[in-house]
Amino acid sequence: MQNFVFHNPTKIIFGQGTIPQIGPETAALAKRVLLVYGRDSIKKNGVYAQVMTALNAAGLEVIEHGGVKPNPILSHVHAGITLAKQKKIDGVVAVGGGSVIDSAKAISAGALVEHDIWKFFTGRKSVCGALPLTCVLTLAASSSEMNSAMVITNEKTNQKFGFANRLLFPRTSILDPTATLSVPRHQAAYGAVDAVSHLLECYCTTTEPFNPVQDRLMEGLAANLMESCGRILAAPNDYQARADFMWAATLSLNGLTAAGLGKIAFPMHLIEHALSALYDVPHGAGLSVVIPGWLTWQAQRNPARLARFAERVFQIVADDDLSKATQGIDRLKAWFAAIDCPTDLAGIGVSAATIPEIAKNASTQATIWRMGDYSVERIAEILRLCL
Amino acid sequence: MQNFVFHNPTKIIFGQGTIPQIGPETAALAKRVLLVYGRDSIKKNGVYAQVMTALNAAGLEVIEHGGVKPNPILSHVHAGITLAKQKKIDGVVAVGGGSVIDSAKAISAGALVEHDIWKFFTGRKSVCGALPLTCVLTLAASSSEMNSAMVITNEKTNQKFGFANRLLFPRTSILDPTATLSVPRHQAAYGAVDAVSHLLECYCTTTEPFNPVQDRLMEGLAANLMESCGRILAAPNDYQARADFMWAATLSLNGLTAAGLGKIAFPMHLIEHALSALYDVPHGAGLSVVIPGWLTWQAQRNPARLARFAERVFQIVADDDLSKATQGIDRLKAWFAAIDCPTDLAGIGVSAATIPEIAKNASTQATIWRMGDYSVERIAEILRLCL
Repeated sequence: MQNFVFHNPTKIIFGQGTIPQIGPETAALAKRVLLVYGRDSIKKNGVYAQVMTALNAAGLEVIEHGGVKPNPILSHVHAGITLAKQKKIDGVVAVGGGSVIDSAKAISAGALVEHDIWKFFTGRKSVCGALPLTCVLTLAASSSEMNSAMVITNEKTNQKFGFANRLLFPRTSILDPTATLSVPRHQAAYGAVDAVSHLLECYCTTTEPFNPVQDRLMEGLAANLMESCGRILAAPNDYQARADFMWAATLSLNGLTAAGLGKIAFPMHLIEHALSALYDVPHGAGLSVVIPGWLTWQAQRNPARLARFAERVFQIVADDDLSKATQGIDRLKAWFAAIDCPTDLAGIGVSAATIPEIAKNASTQATIWRMGDYSVERIAEILRLCL
Repeated sequence: MQNFVFHNPTKIIFGQGTIPQIGPETAALAKRVLLVYGRDSIKKNGVYAQVMTALNAAGLEVIEHGGVKPNPILSHVHAGITLAKQKKIDGVVAVGGGSVIDSAKAISAGALVEHDIWKFFTGRKSVCGALPLTCVLTLAASSSEMNSAMVITNEKTNQKFGFANRLLFPRTSILDPTATLSVPRHQAAYGAVDAVSHLLECYCTTTEPFNPVQDRLMEGLAANLMESCGRILAAPNDYQARADFMWAATLSLNGLTAAGLGKIAFPMHLIEHALSALYDVPHGAGLSVVIPGWLTWQAQRNPARLARFAERVFQIVADDDLSKATQGIDRLKAWFAAIDCPTDLAGIGVSAATIPEIAKNASTQATIWRMGDYSVERIAEILRLCL
C-alpha cells in the first residue's frame, strides 16, 4: 500500500425509476442549465422525455446542446461553451455515456474561462472552477459519471487527449439500468472492454509494495464485468445483468481501485487514443486490439502481475509466471472474440504501414501524461504486436 | 441489485507521515476545536504530540476532552457537549479508534441542540446539523472514520445503541498505519472480528435479487481482513500488514459494501450491544461469541448465503448448502480461536442464567432498529447457541 488521498464526492442514485430525480437534484444547484446529449438514442428510448419532464417540473430553464458523437470533438465542446456563455447558464446536465459526460465536463469548466479549453489538455492551463454538473447515464463503460476525468478529440490536430481535475466530479449521477436496456450488442461489448482495460492498466502498471486489498477489488470487478456482459449479450433485457454491469463499470475507474497503487499509467489508452484520433475507431474496439499487444509486450518484461490476474480471474494453473500470463492473454482474446470485438489491427481496418504515424501521434500524449518511457519506438514495437 | 443511493463525502488521507495534515485540513473548517481522545495510548505512541503540533501550527485554538473509554458512555459525551458550548467551539477533532470517533460525532451534533442527544438514539429527535469533524484514526475496526454511524452506551439505562445520519460523516480522516503499530495483539484481533462481522451481517441478511458485484467485494475484503490480521499478529511492526488491514476495515462499513443490498440488518451487533451494555465486554470479544451462535441459527433457516461465503472465502467444497455453511462456521470459530478471541459466553464470563436479561436488553434496540422479528424469545434462542 502506498500513500494516497481518496475523496470522491459524487452522489450516486442507482436503480430503476430514478431518472425523475434529475429534476430536484439539479434544481438544488442551478436555475438555467445546458442539457448536453448525443444523437437519437435517448429520444427513441424515452430517456430524453423523462429528463425534460423532470427538469421542467423542477422549474429549470433548459437550453439544449445535442449532437455529441462518440470520440467527442473539440469544436462541439467549443460550441457548447459559446452557448453556455451566451445564455448565462449556471449548471450543466449530461444525458448519455462517457462521450456526453466528458463533453459536459469540458463545457462546465470552459464556461468559466476565456482561454481555449484545449490548454487544459495540453497542460498549459489548470481548472480553477466548473459549473455544477449532474448526469443521467445511458451507457455503462467509462466511469466518467463518478470520476474527475474527461477525454476529448481535437479534430484539427488529430489528438485525442485525456485530462483530470477534482473540480470535474459530477455532483450527482443517476444510474438507471433500464436506460441501458436498448444499448446494442456491440456497444455493450465495447463498454465491457473499456471497463476491463481500466482495471488491467491499474493492475499491471502498479509497482511494489503490492496491495492485496486493491488486487482483490480489481479481480472481483473484472470477473463481474465479464460475467455480466455475457448475461447481457445472452439476454439484452435482463435488468439485473444490466445493473450488475453498470455498477461494476462505475467502480472500475472512480478512484477506488487505484487508491494505494502509487503511480499508475494508462499505456493501452494512450495507444488507443491515437487510433481513435486518426481513424475514429470506436474506443472499445481500439482497446480490444491494443490490449493483447500491450499485455504481450508487458508479459515479456514483467509477467508477475498478469500471472496473478490470470490465476485469480481465470483460475489458470501453470508452472511459471510467463506461462500463466500468456494463457491469461489467450483467455482475454478468446473473450473478445466471443463478444465480437476485434483482436488485431486488421480487424479495425488499420494496416501495418500506418504504425509509424500512430506511434508518433500517441507519443505526443505520452509527453503530457509524463510517460516519457513510451517513446515512438516503444509504441511502434507494441503496435507490431497488435498485427 | 436493489435501488440505492451512495454518497460518501469523507476525504481519506492515507499513509505514513500524513498525521501533520490534520492541521491544515481542520483549519480549513474551524478556528476553535474540541480535541476528543481516549486514554494514555496516544500520548505514549507520539500521536498526541504530532496532532497538537499540527493543530497549533495551523493556528487552531484547542480545547481538550480526553478520557473516552471503550464502549463510550453518554455521560462523557454530555460533558463534551457542555464544554463545547461553554468554549463556543466550531469544530471537533477525534484522535483514536471507533469509540473516540463515535463520541466526537455525538458531541459534534449535540453541540448544536438543546435537548439530550440520547433522543437521537431512541428515535425521538433527528440530526439537523453537526460541527465539522476531522479524525486521526489510531485503531482500525469500526469504519466510523468513513461512515455516518455512532454507537454510544447510556450507562444509566444500560443501553448501548447505534444511530446514523448523513450529517455525521467526518469531513477528513487521516489514516496513518504507523499510528496502529502499537495496538496490542488482543485489540487488533477484536478489530478484525468487528470488521468481519460488518461484512457477514451485510452478506447474510440481504435478500434476492442478490448482487454479485457486492458479493465479490465483501468476499475479497473478508479474505483480506483475515489474512492481514494474521500478518499483524505474526509481526506487529509489519507496516504493510497494518496498512492493508486498516484500509480493508475502513471499506467494510463505509456504505460501499451495502450499496444495492436493500434492507440489511445487524443482528449480531444488536445482541453484542446488550452484552457490552450489561457487562462492559470488549465489542470484538462480544462479537466473536455471538457470531457462531447467530450464524448457526441463520444456517438452520437459510444456509445459502453463508454457504456461498464459505465456498468463496474458505474454498469449502461440500454436497449441500447446510454442510458448506456449517463448515464455514467451523472455520470462523477456528480463526477466532487462533487469534485468541472467545467463542462462547463462558469465554467472556457470562452465564446461561443471564440470557433472559441480555435478550430483553437487546430487544429494546430491535424495536428502534425496526427489527421487530428479533423478539426476546428469538434473541434468547440465539444466545443459547452461544453457550
